[in-house]
Amino acid sequence: MNYTFIENGSVTSPLGFVAGGVAAGVKAYTNATQAALKNEPVLPVNGKRDLAMIYCEKPCAAAAIFTRNLVKSDTIYVTQKHLENGVAQAVIVNSGNANACNPDGYEKAERMCALAADALGIDANDVIVASTGVIGQALPIEPIAKSVDALKNALSKEGGTNAAEAIMTTDTVKKEWAVSLTLDGKTVTIGGIAKGSGMIHINMGTTLSFVTTDAAISAEMLKAALIEAADVTYNMVSVDGDTSTNDTLAIMASGLAGNAEITEKNADYALFTEALTAAFRQVARKLAADGEGATRLIIGRVSGAKDEAAAKTIAKSVICSSLVKAAMFGADANCGRILCAVGYSGAEVDIKKIDVSYRSAKGEILVCKDGMGLAFDEDKAKEILLENEIDIMIRLGDGDGTAEAYGCDLTYDYVKINGDYRT
Amino acid sequence: MNYTFIENGSVTSPLGFVAGGVAAGVKAYTNATQAALKNEPVLPVNGKRDLAMIYCEKPCAAAAIFTRNLVKSDTIYVTQKHLENGVAQAVIVNSGNANACNPDGYEKAERMCALAADALGIDANDVIVASTGVIGQALPIEPIAKSVDALKNALSKEGGTNAAEAIMTTDTVKKEWAVSLTLDGKTVTIGGIAKGSGMIHINMGTTLSFVTTDAAISAEMLKAALIEAADVTYNMVSVDGDTSTNDTLAIMASGLAGNAEITEKNADYALFTEALTAAFRQVARKLAADGEGATRLIIGRVSGAKDEAAAKTIAKSVICSSLVKAAMFGADANCGRILCAVGYSGAEVDIKKIDVSYRSAKGEILVCKDGMGLAFDEDKAKEILLENEIDIMIRLGDGDGTAEAYGCDLTYDYVKINGDYRT
Repeated sequence: MNYTFIENGSVTSPLGFVAGGVAAGVKAYTNATQAALKNEPVLPVNGKRDLAMIYCEKPCAAAAIFTRNLVKSDTIYVTQKHLENGVAQAVIVNSGNANACNPDGYEKAERMCALAADALGIDANDVIVASTGVIGQALPIEPIAKSVDALKNALSKEGGTNAAEAIMTTDTVKKEWAVSLTLDGKTVTIGGIAKGSGMIHINMGTTLSFVTTDAAISAEMLKAALIEAADVTYNMVSVDGDTSTNDTLAIMASGLAGNAEITEKNADYALFTEALTAAFRQVARKLAADGEGATRLIIGRVSGAKDEAAAKTIAKSVICSSLVKAAMFGADANCGRILCAVGYSGAEVDIKKIDVSYRSAKGEILVCKDGMGLAFDEDKAKEILLENEIDIMIRLGDGDGTAEAYGCDLTYDYVKINGDYRT
Repeated sequence: MNYTFIENGSVTSPLGFVAGGVAAGVKAYTNATQAALKNEPVLPVNGKRDLAMIYCEKPCAAAAIFTRNLVKSDTIYVTQKHLENGVAQAVIVNSGNANACNPDGYEKAERMCALAADALGIDANDVIVASTGVIGQALPIEPIAKSVDALKNALSKEGGTNAAEAIMTTDTVKKEWAVSLTLDGKTVTIGGIAKGSGMIHINMGTTLSFVTTDAAISAEMLKAALIEAADVTYNMVSVDGDTSTNDTLAIMASGLAGNAEITEKNADYALFTEALTAAFRQVARKLAADGEGATRLIIGRVSGAKDEAAAKTIAKSVICSSLVKAAMFGADANCGRILCAVGYSGAEVDIKKIDVSYRSAKGEILVCKDGMGLAFDEDKAKEILLENEIDIMIRLGDGDGTAEAYGCDLTYDYVKINGDYRT
């Protein structure tokens, strides 16, 4: 390993970055707007942080990748435009309202950037904007306008954790991290925050994630590294099969570490991408483990596939199966549902060469050999499956392709959370 | 309409067919085999019917279509072989064990056919076989061998309903139907039974379904009609996105109605296919409404799509979305999740021209106009969505393509049923 995870690291760990998060009341204002339309009483603003900012003391090389959903939040179009020149200096994000499918969404997203830029004294074109929450309800700009100065004043080196909290929706744990490595004899740090929970499916992003680094690296190489790292991590996570309208994974590089700037795919690029991938892998696990209502992290691990593409297809098919997910909730060592999900994945496999086992901290148990179900010790299987991290090991006899995909169990709480999300 | 549904019709309504269902104890024997491996006490046989037979007094033209899952029950390979000559005279089916992913599955499926053929005094090659239940556990042949004579003796014109009951697994209602039409001046009847519930997803079949008719029609035309009718009905149903290993939709035509045999795609073929499609549409609705744990039938109705293929893709994407399904359980008139599912469907759409409304027996409410969320009367929306049949109307501005897809809500009970199916 050419990198080290930093304990209590966050998006502010790299040189040059500060962050913060405040309670602006976006969700309460959204509800109030709806209530006003019906002449109902306005609900009080709750105290949850819902507005986050990340700021760098200097303009950064920047890149981002986005949801592939055709229906996109206007924040994405605004951010895309602002990143055309590969430069950004700040991020502003709200939770509580996705600013998607609204007639004035683009204007509001631009307004958020302008508010951030005014407070920070920078160019609005250097601001990345994102939103998360309910879709199709007007984004109230008032609470953001009222809170932006407080947000600016809250920026600090310790503020990464408040920013991580402010972007949470139904997330139950904050997701922040940092990792360090040596490039060109210099210590380089990469840090990030992320939110996930529901409406999460393979195909980039699947969350809001903001990454910072003090590495010197061009915007072009930053984007290449982002795509490469996301491909085997973010793009292998599924909570519920729904690709959101707002997924954004953005990265800013301050260059303050003082390494020779990475401008091509050299050895330093490889080291940087390796560290980024390791960090993203940890985030992918956290996003899946904290999937809405989840009680268990489920990792589909495929080996012996025809090629990497087949391995990925199979791993994703298994962790996306509602029946597999429900079986994992019930700690049921079902082999038929795994074989079934392999069979309909669309990948080419020799079904007579499939072995399946379940593995956790309590051991491993083989439930299928050569495509056939085995009789196995149900008590042992239960003991293994009652752990909160389960590997579903799928060994094929078709080649050298391997892949990992990250999912979670399907629980009563997923249904509860999503049966009445808006109220 | 050129056809009439027959009240209390079943698979025995067409001339020449009898059917029956008995309690053989397949599930109890399956569990007993597992228990014996662990030296545990054997559970008693429960009284649920689990072995069904359909028999025609003469050999029939026959056809079937099957699951597209690469992992198939051996019953499918045996039935495919037996239908190579386009002739069948009987069906034998068990529930309680899927006979899939077992080393001796093919042999056991052949043995089921031989047992049925011996009891009936017909050729084993003229028997269609199917199984449904747990995957990957050995099919016990003893209970079937012991019960086959009783099953033969139970065959009657009134026995269709017992056969329908015997193929149920987690189904809560029996699915049986018959429809009549006039062909060539003769009354022709088509009847059927079906089981569904879980592991149901678009891509043919999605269930076990057995259809009979007294129409005179060639095996080739029977298959063509089957594919045409299934394409807009069975292939548009999804309960949980999982395509099963055992899906079988088989049809037998006795020819006893005495119409001029249909051997080409003529006007009679069109009438026959129209009636078959209407019947299958009713079954599709029943399969979705009785999806595991479902409290509501959800129909995605798309109009104005670029073409029929796009309309189908969008309709299926919407009714397959876990988030839409959970919202329907909560009677939540969410518009964002519908737009989101349209957006990631893969179909080409102009998102600025999407209108979405919810409709039920209580009325219709528009929640999205031109791709933008609308403020709407939440109380009215709740009233509409609390009905047990909901249409999600998606009107596009891209062309003339229309489609309907059939799904259900995602509930606590789906999770409960599938969290511990095997025990």
